[in-house]
Amino acid sequence: MAIKRKKVSVIGGGFTGATTAFLLGQKELADVVLVDIPQMENPTKGKALDMLEASPVQGFDANITGTSNYEDTANSDIVVITAGIARKPGMSRDDLVATNAGIMKNVTREVVKYSPDCIIIVLTNPVDAMTYSVYKESGFPKNRVIGQSGVLDTARFRTFIAQELNVSVKDVTGFVLGGHGDDMVPLVRYSYAGGIPLETLMSRSRLEEIVERTRKGGGEIVNLLGNGSAYYAPAASLVEMVEAILKDQRRVLPTIAYLEGEYSFEGIYLGVPTILGGNGLEKIIELDLTEEEMAALTKSANSVKSVMKLLS
Amino acid sequence: MAIKRKKVSVIGGGFTGATTAFLLGQKELADVVLVDIPQMENPTKGKALDMLEASPVQGFDANITGTSNYEDTANSDIVVITAGIARKPGMSRDDLVATNAGIMKNVTREVVKYSPDCIIIVLTNPVDAMTYSVYKESGFPKNRVIGQSGVLDTARFRTFIAQELNVSVKDVTGFVLGGHGDDMVPLVRYSYAGGIPLETLMSRSRLEEIVERTRKGGGEIVNLLGNGSAYYAPAASLVEMVEAILKDQRRVLPTIAYLEGEYSFEGIYLGVPTILGGNGLEKIIELDLTEEEMAALTKSANSVKSVMKLLS
Amino acid sequence: MAIKRKKVSVIGGGFTGATTAFLLGQKELADVVLVDIPQMENPTKGKALDMLEASPVQGFDANITGTSNYEDTANSDIVVITAGIARKPGMSRDDLVATNAGIMKNVTREVVKYSPDCIIIVLTNPVDAMTYSVYKESGFPKNRVIGQSGVLDTARFRTFIAQELNVSVKDVTGFVLGGHGDDMVPLVRYSYAGGIPLETLMSRSRLEEIVERTRKGGGEIVNLLGNGSAYYAPAASLVEMVEAILKDQRRVLPTIAYLEGEYSFEGIYLGVPTILGGNGLEKIIELDLTEEEMAALTKSANSVKSVMKLLS
Amino acid sequence: MAIKRKKVSVIGGGFTGATTAFLLGQKELADVVLVDIPQMENPTKGKALDMLEASPVQGFDANITGTSNYEDTANSDIVVITAGIARKPGMSRDDLVATNAGIMKNVTREVVKYSPDCIIIVLTNPVDAMTYSVYKESGFPKNRVIGQSGVLDTARFRTFIAQELNVSVKDVTGFVLGGHGDDMVPLVRYSYAGGIPLETLMSRSRLEEIVERTRKGGGEIVNLLGNGSAYYAPAASLVEMVEAILKDQRRVLPTIAYLEGEYSFEGIYLGVPTILGGNGLEKIIELDLTEEEMAALTKSANSVKSVMKLLS
Repeated sequence: MAIKRKKVSVIGGGFTGATTAFLLGQKELADVVLVDIPQMENPTKGKALDMLEASPVQGFDANITGTSNYEDTANSDIVVITAGIARKPGMSRDDLVATNAGIMKNVTREVVKYSPDCIIIVLTNPVDAMTYSVYKESGFPKNRVIGQSGVLDTARFRTFIAQELNVSVKDVTGFVLGGHGDDMVPLVRYSYAGGIPLETLMSRSRLEEIVERTRKGGGEIVNLLGNGSAYYAPAASLVEMVEAILKDQRRVLPTIAYLEGEYSFEGIYLGVPTILGGNGLEKIIELDLTEEEMAALTKSANSVKSVMKLLS
Repeated sequence: MAIKRKKVSVIGGGFTGATTAFLLGQKELADVVLVDIPQMENPTKGKALDMLEASPVQGFDANITGTSNYEDTANSDIVVITAGIARKPGMSRDDLVATNAGIMKNVTREVVKYSPDCIIIVLTNPVDAMTYSVYKESGFPKNRVIGQSGVLDTARFRTFIAQELNVSVKDVTGFVLGGHGDDMVPLVRYSYAGGIPLETLMSRSRLEEIVERTRKGGGEIVNLLGNGSAYYAPAASLVEMVEAILKDQRRVLPTIAYLEGEYSFEGIYLGVPTILGGNGLEKIIELDLTEEEMAALTKSANSVKSVMKLLS
Repeated sequence: MAIKRKKVSVIGGGFTGATTAFLLGQKELADVVLVDIPQMENPTKGKALDMLEASPVQGFDANITGTSNYEDTANSDIVVITAGIARKPGMSRDDLVATNAGIMKNVTREVVKYSPDCIIIVLTNPVDAMTYSVYKESGFPKNRVIGQSGVLDTARFRTFIAQELNVSVKDVTGFVLGGHGDDMVPLVRYSYAGGIPLETLMSRSRLEEIVERTRKGGGEIVNLLGNGSAYYAPAASLVEMVEAILKDQRRVLPTIAYLEGEYSFEGIYLGVPTILGGNGLEKIIELDLTEEEMAALTKSANSVKSVMKLLS
Repeated sequence: MAIKRKKVSVIGGGFTGATTAFLLGQKELADVVLVDIPQMENPTKGKALDMLEASPVQGFDANITGTSNYEDTANSDIVVITAGIARKPGMSRDDLVATNAGIMKNVTREVVKYSPDCIIIVLTNPVDAMTYSVYKESGFPKNRVIGQSGVLDTARFRTFIAQELNVSVKDVTGFVLGGHGDDMVPLVRYSYAGGIPLETLMSRSRLEEIVERTRKGGGEIVNLLGNGSAYYAPAASLVEMVEAILKDQRRVLPTIAYLEGEYSFEGIYLGVPTILGGNGLEKIIELDLTEEEMAALTKSANSVKSVMKLLS
């Protein structure tokens, strides 16, 4: 009967997973278990301990632990999957998909075994297909398996727009549909600064440049870093989704969700506007799209389907 | 006459520097400039951009930029120095000191050139000697050159005690004097849980074990990580000191400060209890020490002096 | 050269003024001076002390003091004016205007005397005319004298919409022009949930009802309270404007600003979309309005002008 | 299986109850139900609505509602009782006790009926006896019925000490045992600034003055206000206790707890150091007291007992 802290497990102790764990703890949203493979157990424990040692100074009470043992994830409320490899030079897309799909299967089996009632959020790329893979393996209802891409894409878009207009990021909103990165379908007409449509605040061409920069946003960071990829903004995006669910906030956020007829697609995961709350995916919001938008979304869906074919 | 944001520059774009930059931005304490050497300029820009892209989601307005050009640090209110190398296997302590002291000199010259009125906080190890080196090179008054070690040491101590007693980290306090790590002089009699002296809450021997674990706290993380050292808790510690100064909070925090007769030491930097506020170091608090404590502090001071000799 | 805390004075120690003071302190935005008339000096001191006694528990460092002596407001960065009487049964509008205009003059004279460089934010009703009165008396440039009404009106609108749609208040935005309350000109086409235009999410008639409820939002609270008027939401609205300025956030917020040709109006204060930053009013954003909207705004402006005539 | 928000009901919609409701919502700790008697239903609804309308601006998702119907409190996790009358001029202590004890019984019956598993925190004065009254009426185990006084008393003490020493409130701690106000037993030897015993930082006489001022802290505010009593600091104190429980933080806080032999007392409620967590009262911490302290605590206990006699 006692009140217990929520529990979130983060699978994958790389930079994104670790940063996600830290941001979750910092907000006192839950106790956090950071999981990696046995060979990485010690570094994962080291990161978790370092985070915990920041807690007295940052003033948060959250137990953060590192492990390679899935038993430690038992009874998680939410599990975030960041595990997987990044595409290496010379690696084909098919190989990447096959490898990460294999990882998803193994991870999901373990997650489901110890937390049969959890909600799963997937970040691993290619995220639409990987979320589908987790969905299939888990046997969970669709409200409990979702993926992240749109929160990150809009965060980048908002950052660039705020810089361009020299206004607070708090007052810029963005809107995307479809897949991550190149497959992203931006709905610029639903993007605003202070509620004012962006199209009235800057030239069409400048707006297009920023959309294009957003599409390539992940690559921009990869190129700058030289070695590795973005993790601050991806982690923050995951945390926003976790918070929406743990606090039953019913946030209106773009989510990679399983479509069963919505937007005319059947049986695929795709980025759509949703409501996230205590049940995970509470609702998919359907919008009237222009012909052009629908064409772009269909292209994005086809791209997802072509990757999904590689899964079986 | 317009109200302007505060500005903090962080020298050294490694994990500690980057995490410090992120935490400063997250708290909307200041605009942040993350500085590294020219060869690292792109990765530094990449990290800064990634952080910035987290800002719409985390809801903070702070410009975070990466650079290798000290001009971009101009008119900083505070400069945090995390630059320097870590001791590598086979490297003598003397070589470490010589290398980092050289880095301190170059960094300080640039910092002072562009921000002649700033307050400098040093993290680079061996931190007592490095802070002294920056002090000398800067020509700044002693209130504007300080070092960090005690906030981190007590954070680790507090973490271990909170775990041991199974209570909130918010209610555990610790107290250290002297140098970092092995030279740390813990004042256990000034350490409490909920105001209750720890000595009455656990056995002397358990307390000693925790003190010893704290002393070796940095090494514990290094050993676990296998490659690299702690950065979450060190960054959080730096941010606490920066916040105390930027908000003129007059926090009572352990600081590596320049002693001119306090605790009977003259002309060295050593960890002592202080008040940090809008002037940087506002005051050194002098305590009556037991003979044993004074002996330990003297040993710590001698250790600092022996490193300082390597500087000239 | 030392870094000093910002300072905000709040004139009028009633519920709104007091709540504003508390929320400002709680956010560590500034030291706060709460000012009321000499007869209310003790209660004002009492409220300030009570707030201060909450600070160790809520964890903020901000000096909050109560006074009736304007000397204590010296060198404020921002001054918020909440002083004034509320309309009593049987009191004519003209009498209300005359009384509050007199209070504005006296208050402004004292404020300007001790803080000649401050930025002033007015809340006192009728707020458009009272802001004008302060502007005239102060002799300040228009960027340093603004009024609050739109942040509150949109807050109410957002609350009702979030309830109606059962989504997070974080994802609902609203947009108003013109005066406060009855004179409010809502731009429903610029109001969204998760970026989706409200008009596509609910019926026109339901939306109209909510707009109407927003217009009467102040009265709804007055009627429920029976004695007194709203203060939580008004205070929060003031604090958002203060924060935007103190942190130079360049927020896009509706502000009662002095128009010199914008929206075709000359020499009156009216609610318009603006950017608030370190200079106070950074910019007025001009929008293309529909004929209907322009008519409503003109009606609102005429209403302001009719009140302004009572001032001379 | 869905994740649901926590629920806290606050009985008594006066200033303390209302401020408690607002601070709880602001922290997104729970949905909040503010309850008052039927005659006050509308004002209570008005306050709740006003708070809710602040939520979009302050950025919190929490449903805050006002009611006079206890059905609306059903399934609360925590219930805070602030209801009761204040002592009026000419009213005897016995009459005050009798009136408030009657209120406690009625309130408790309703609370227990709708939330049989909740944890109750009592603020109503005389708080030790009123907590006992609620305990008896509820039939709850002692870990689920506690009272607030020590968090507030130490908050006041910390405020005065921080002012005296000109240091951050974050670094000052205080420690009290026994009853509220005049019956407070301060343990100055367990009170510190930055971990340094206060006795070494200021004169014994100055410290005594501050202890005395703390004892009379409630009266100081009453005298200043002229009409009414403190509510900001009392509300903040309640919220700290609620947060400790809802987040299972295991805070070390002074609590009015039911003693069964601890400190040699049997069957009375008295302020003692405790651990608060997910079970409510997790543990009473027993300290070795000096003879003088034990005498003061006995005096305080006798005072509680004399009030308790009035209850039957």
